[in-house]
Amino acid sequence: MPLIKVSAISRPQSVAGAIAGMVREHARAEIVAVGPDAVNQAVKAIAIARKYVEPDGIDLVMVPQMTDIAIDGNQRTAIVFVVGSRKALSSP
Amino acid sequence: MPLIKVSAISRPQSVAGAIAGMVREHARAEIVAVGPDAVNQAVKAIAIARKYVEPDGIDLVMVPQMTDIAIDGNQRTAIVFVVGSRKALSSP
Repeated sequence: MPLIKVSAISRPQSVAGAIAGMVREHARAEIVAVGPDAVNQAVKAIAIARKYVEPDGIDLVMVPQMTDIAIDGNQRTAIVFVVGSRKALSSP
Repeated sequence: MPLIKVSAISRPQSVAGAIAGMVREHARAEIVAVGPDAVNQAVKAIAIARKYVEPDGIDLVMVPQMTDIAIDGNQRTAIVFVVGSRKALSSP
């Protein structure tokens, strides 16, 4: 599964381009974000990616999941967004 | 369309309950959030709501959209999350 890590300083347009490319090639992608600012950038990127792939006939939807990960020994909650075509995206 | 406003101090579990109730009754719901902290709470709430409605056979997906709104005379970008069953949710 293609994985895209998004940080608080990621540019939504750049991330959107990466998402669109992966969805076109692999039908789906996973985006990981930790912290409110990163989650916000990820959501904006997905909203933009949705427009990028619309002309390809792809109706992009996302499924958010929470997962605990360890960063520098600290327990953090990461958000994993599974995105893909409404039809192609099987349930996680 | 049922509308749920989420703020930075909204409790994800409470919002998730509201989302689940609206999705069960109306098949879909719209969640509005302004700012990274509110968007983060909204995403967590949707991830939790997904688990709430799973036993009902609902495969909850979301579509994020950006929209400009005026708050106290200032232009802000709001995120609108359209959520619903993968099958029932028509394209916005």
